[in-house]
Amino acid sequence: MAYYKHRTISFDNCYVKDGFTIAGPKESDGCLRGHFDVQLKDDMMGEDTFEHAERKMFETAIEGIAAKSNLCFDEVNLVLGGDLLNQTVSTSFAMRKHPVAFLGLYNACATFVEGLIIGSTMVQSYLKNVICLAGSHFSTAERQYRYPLELGVLRSPVTQWTATGVGSCMLTNDCTQSNVKIVRATIGRVVDYGIMDVNNMGAAMAPAAKDTLIAHFRATDTHPSDYDLILTGDLGKLGKQILVELMAKEGYDLSNNCADCGASLYFEEQQTYQGGSGAACSALVFSGIVLSNLKKGKIKRMLLVGTGALMSPTTSFQGDSIPAIAHLVEICSTQEVCDDIS
Amino acid sequence: MAYYKHRTISFDNCYVKDGFTIAGPKESDGCLRGHFDVQLKDDMMGEDTFEHAERKMFETAIEGIAAKSNLCFDEVNLVLGGDLLNQTVSTSFAMRKHPVAFLGLYNACATFVEGLIIGSTMVQSYLKNVICLAGSHFSTAERQYRYPLELGVLRSPVTQWTATGVGSCMLTNDCTQSNVKIVRATIGRVVDYGIMDVNNMGAAMAPAAKDTLIAHFRATDTHPSDYDLILTGDLGKLGKQILVELMAKEGYDLSNNCADCGASLYFEEQQTYQGGSGAACSALVFSGIVLSNLKKGKIKRMLLVGTGALMSPTTSFQGDSIPAIAHLVEICSTQEVCDDIS
Repeated sequence: MAYYKHRTISFDNCYVKDGFTIAGPKESDGCLRGHFDVQLKDDMMGEDTFEHAERKMFETAIEGIAAKSNLCFDEVNLVLGGDLLNQTVSTSFAMRKHPVAFLGLYNACATFVEGLIIGSTMVQSYLKNVICLAGSHFSTAERQYRYPLELGVLRSPVTQWTATGVGSCMLTNDCTQSNVKIVRATIGRVVDYGIMDVNNMGAAMAPAAKDTLIAHFRATDTHPSDYDLILTGDLGKLGKQILVELMAKEGYDLSNNCADCGASLYFEEQQTYQGGSGAACSALVFSGIVLSNLKKGKIKRMLLVGTGALMSPTTSFQGDSIPAIAHLVEICSTQEVCDDIS
Repeated sequence: MAYYKHRTISFDNCYVKDGFTIAGPKESDGCLRGHFDVQLKDDMMGEDTFEHAERKMFETAIEGIAAKSNLCFDEVNLVLGGDLLNQTVSTSFAMRKHPVAFLGLYNACATFVEGLIIGSTMVQSYLKNVICLAGSHFSTAERQYRYPLELGVLRSPVTQWTATGVGSCMLTNDCTQSNVKIVRATIGRVVDYGIMDVNNMGAAMAPAAKDTLIAHFRATDTHPSDYDLILTGDLGKLGKQILVELMAKEGYDLSNNCADCGASLYFEEQQTYQGGSGAACSALVFSGIVLSNLKKGKIKRMLLVGTGALMSPTTSFQGDSIPAIAHLVEICSTQEVCDDIS
């Protein structure tokens, strides 16, 4: 494994074997209808609280990805993941059911890609099968970060909708198991442009995505046109537009091949305004339709850029701005000749 | 690097170059007085809120460890860490000041050792200089997890005192930089023995420490007597006693060489009851006096077992028990011949 420079690293033998997704009712009715393994009709999942429902989604995703990969839990070496609840309790509590090594992560909505980077390093070094997962639940996030659900607060037109769901992937170092390869990664750093409006997280996160993308292009000597798809996590429609404009000012044209997981989740009439947000966004979209298109060779080379807003209600109450981070993985379908990469 | 079995992994070239600690007033007056790099007289650090003071401790620790290691931030490849505040805001906000790659972690008070494990893997694979850090602040933790400070709630005799401070280490792959080597690690899994009393976290965490210790002894074919020191994170006096008893039932005698960071921090008259807790405990004690004793060869081979209780106030309100996790690193002073290890 070569260490390029600055924050960019490369991997020789890390493959994404499978993905498993469980999505909430609104997400299952959205643009990606039919592309999730489990499509929930009831976001309570028969539980007594939204928090217990979120936990059950995580349990389902962990069991689902192991089953889909034909592995029993003895063969899973590690689970890496996190969620948005205080103390990331959904992931931690779900892990009670499975006697597998666990490392809990938190970089807000960039947690899924953070997991892919650490997981790729672990798989590269010694582990055989590693689960990476992240998720969120609209109702738990809303009442923890914003207002009680019962209050019926009017939403601002720049807001996004926290996606309900969990996305999970199985990483492996066995090249016979998959043609989808994680080849490089750029680890993000914390960027704060002084955005104070917690309803406008796309604006807070776009500069972090810009920072990481430019670091990756420079370290690898690539350009946006080298990729079939540049997929950001949950900037939303407005945030994506800000990113495209920020990148244009730096001489990078993202106008042709950039998409955002959050902006891709819902139909206009579902009234999510700027689209989806939450740790589930990139996990659901990548582990579902995107991974499937990589496997089929429809996408040959892409960047997945997880974006996270790192504030808490307490920091906002205390007058702080919103720092953000973006982590990036470069993924290839190995039907493409990637000799120039590793 | 060899992967042993189950949850235990080994490292060939990971060294702990330096440690840097900043400790609160109570900790600086405790048993380890004089062993911290910065001993605070004011736990507000001149800031307007306790949360901002905690953040400033993290900023100080990041700057301190880089300076002590004679590195500018261009030479630091990665920072790994976390804290106990919701959304781990102390670490994330502190990272705004430093243009370095950052991966945020959360495994409660096991976060420091979690960072050492991921950091060792990263250093082993490609990175040269990695900072691992964790910390906590009594006043922020108390008001977030328990009661408003002004309420003056009487404390139960089984409680511990959340330590104020941040401990940080610089990991490197350069063997000329240090004689202290991280040689093996065992990653924890989530264990829940059904403890419901949030005042008695030692009891909740002791079974997790047992689980990880036994996994490590079995995978490496070692015994407690092979180590000069088995140092747990923050079980406290009662939790440590429970661990020693649980291990005795399994045939492992910890009575001679087991110590607990939390139980080692304060004098009896400081009225912390069972001792310290919090993410700062293992970070402060290891990065200070223990690392110093490893460098001098006074400790030749030891286990550091970070212990974390993974509940949140919400899970306790909703009637859930307290899951726990323990991560372990085995550390050698390379003056000892460790041929049998790697």
